[in-house]
Amino acid sequence: MKRLMLLVALLLPLGLGAQQNVGFKKSNVEPVVVNADRSVTFQVEAPGAKKVAIRGDWEANGGQGELKKGDNGVWTYTTPPLPSEMYTYRISVDGQMGLAPGNPFSCRDVGNLFSIFYVNGGNGDYYQVRDVPHGSVTTTWYHSDILGMERRLNVYTPPFYEKNQQAYPVLYLLHGSGGDENAWLELGRTARIMDNLIAEGKIEPMIVVMPNGNPSKQAAPGETTDNLSYKPAMSNSFPGYKDGSYEKSFTEIIHFIDNRYRTLADKAHRAVAGLSMGGFHTLYISLNYPDYFNYVGLFSAGLDMSAIDTTNPMYANLDQKLSDLKRSGYGLFWIAIGKDDFLYDANQQFIDRMKKQGLDYQYVESTRGHIWANWRAYLLQFAPLLFK
Amino acid sequence: MKRLMLLVALLLPLGLGAQQNVGFKKSNVEPVVVNADRSVTFQVEAPGAKKVAIRGDWEANGGQGELKKGDNGVWTYTTPPLPSEMYTYRISVDGQMGLAPGNPFSCRDVGNLFSIFYVNGGNGDYYQVRDVPHGSVTTTWYHSDILGMERRLNVYTPPFYEKNQQAYPVLYLLHGSGGDENAWLELGRTARIMDNLIAEGKIEPMIVVMPNGNPSKQAAPGETTDNLSYKPAMSNSFPGYKDGSYEKSFTEIIHFIDNRYRTLADKAHRAVAGLSMGGFHTLYISLNYPDYFNYVGLFSAGLDMSAIDTTNPMYANLDQKLSDLKRSGYGLFWIAIGKDDFLYDANQQFIDRMKKQGLDYQYVESTRGHIWANWRAYLLQFAPLLFK
Repeated sequence: MKRLMLLVALLLPLGLGAQQNVGFKKSNVEPVVVNADRSVTFQVEAPGAKKVAIRGDWEANGGQGELKKGDNGVWTYTTPPLPSEMYTYRISVDGQMGLAPGNPFSCRDVGNLFSIFYVNGGNGDYYQVRDVPHGSVTTTWYHSDILGMERRLNVYTPPFYEKNQQAYPVLYLLHGSGGDENAWLELGRTARIMDNLIAEGKIEPMIVVMPNGNPSKQAAPGETTDNLSYKPAMSNSFPGYKDGSYEKSFTEIIHFIDNRYRTLADKAHRAVAGLSMGGFHTLYISLNYPDYFNYVGLFSAGLDMSAIDTTNPMYANLDQKLSDLKRSGYGLFWIAIGKDDFLYDANQQFIDRMKKQGLDYQYVESTRGHIWANWRAYLLQFAPLLFK
Repeated sequence: MKRLMLLVALLLPLGLGAQQNVGFKKSNVEPVVVNADRSVTFQVEAPGAKKVAIRGDWEANGGQGELKKGDNGVWTYTTPPLPSEMYTYRISVDGQMGLAPGNPFSCRDVGNLFSIFYVNGGNGDYYQVRDVPHGSVTTTWYHSDILGMERRLNVYTPPFYEKNQQAYPVLYLLHGSGGDENAWLELGRTARIMDNLIAEGKIEPMIVVMPNGNPSKQAAPGETTDNLSYKPAMSNSFPGYKDGSYEKSFTEIIHFIDNRYRTLADKAHRAVAGLSMGGFHTLYISLNYPDYFNYVGLFSAGLDMSAIDTTNPMYANLDQKLSDLKRSGYGLFWIAIGKDDFLYDANQQFIDRMKKQGLDYQYVESTRGHIWANWRAYLLQFAPLLFK
């Protein structure tokens, strides 16, 4: 017993030790509770606050709500039932917006962190870790002669990649404006989606490459030689935005990957897809290199006919390039957009151009707008169509 | 010009697009400014707040300060000059503690996020990204028969690992209580320290393995099949804490790494080091497997003689095991602790035991206590002593 007491005495300071000199306060309330009917209750312990509000990315009430204060100083708010999803949100306490107090789980989008939670029973299940074989994720650097710098990318290799000598097909997955090489992993949940779809036998095991799509940036904010002087921002504020240099440099990424990994290094086993700005990149990468990709995916693509028909050689002569792609041939040209997306009309205009040139495509029109819930859902739909 | 206007019109909605439905508010004040004299000024725009305070991990004023409100609604606080370092801090607005508004850069410690900044001109330089060749970091999973689960670990491979056929020595780097496989990367800045020390020719290029040291947890919070029901906590609240099972399972990690990577798979080319609980693990891994490691590093090790001399076979017979290690031989037994560390006395008691058994060791006594600033500094000192 004496030994036990000594042990307990030891554990107590050890327990606090890693936090010496830093604040560590825990509230006893559960910050987010998903109820049986899939409504979600948020709780914030803030006895002194005057107003506590929530802003999330769910559709109900536009993701907005005001919490109500209980006698115990705990503020609460309950949503209507929500579809299965990964949701992001923030809490405002007396006008100061930030992460939800007490929720340790977050994701970064551009320069802000958002608290997260899942609602199970559908798509949200695919975004979580299940008891299935897991792939690996490697963060590494490649050299771009064209952009004149070392650049960072993330590579997902499927389960058992290291245990066999098999060569794999490759999906290149491109982020949107404000994103970086981490976006498809953090907000897109790509590694989990791949693990879970592979485990269900719904997709071919594949390598997924997630590069950085900002031609003047080496890497994500904080991960470049600019370190903390990198101000996260939307990509159109960075040099090189849509000047064609990124699309031009893309073959360097492909060659790097084909050299580094056991890939099936031919058109039949390569796919490229991207969201928003990454959809724009995807279009021009596939059009300017018609012999590289058999599968093309535009997810809420940042297509605007005025940006497209410029004199920039990378973006000029759309009809000719569409015609070249048709002649070269491809397995799948997949276009998805939400009916509320501000890019809806631009995508319809682009589809008209494809029709005029007689190109085949698959079109998926989803609900809602320009949001990660759609992009994750598109990946869930697109990946099973590849390499079959 | 008309085309330019159209382009601008396109860029605007695209710029906001990725943020549709989520809050994105930017303040114009710089959240943290490192001044020429290395004092640091913090700014928070909070016109309606009554009290804004800061809590950080610097020594000056115990890291505490109260910001003062200016006429413009911006609160400011300036520290005295600070040593070069990576600092973590949080801001409290009217008693609500959280990340610093406007600072997009953070690190997680246990279950909380902390805002970060660097002061240059010394150790802090090593924790940032420089224009040097970069290694890769892979997050992968191994199977433990002993612990009965898939487990996650991070592996740093040095620059050019993929471009040659060389075999490399391996450093196993263990986290403390409340930590996980990400702690040495996030708070420890290990990949950057390694890149920068290798570039300066100060260390041998080596592989660094950062496993998860909680025997009942597969991975970091949010990365296990428990997903968001994993409540981050200090390790002593988890099953298996110091029951010997983790040390017993450690050879599984070594075998996994030696199979997966091009390692120099012998004692001469293996090192193990750990902080706090990881120092305790390090001691018993090196003592119970005296033929595995030529280099041992205890960083503020969680040693307590009452925990050590238990009947658990893994922790019993310390003197006999020390004697076995002496007979087996080793290149370096390195012990570092801060003079203000609550584990200071325990480490001195352990050193007495080593002395009695006639074991050689190197002892480094630093300033301050049980903090990451010390552990990063210890890695900077320890790594150059390895594999030479």
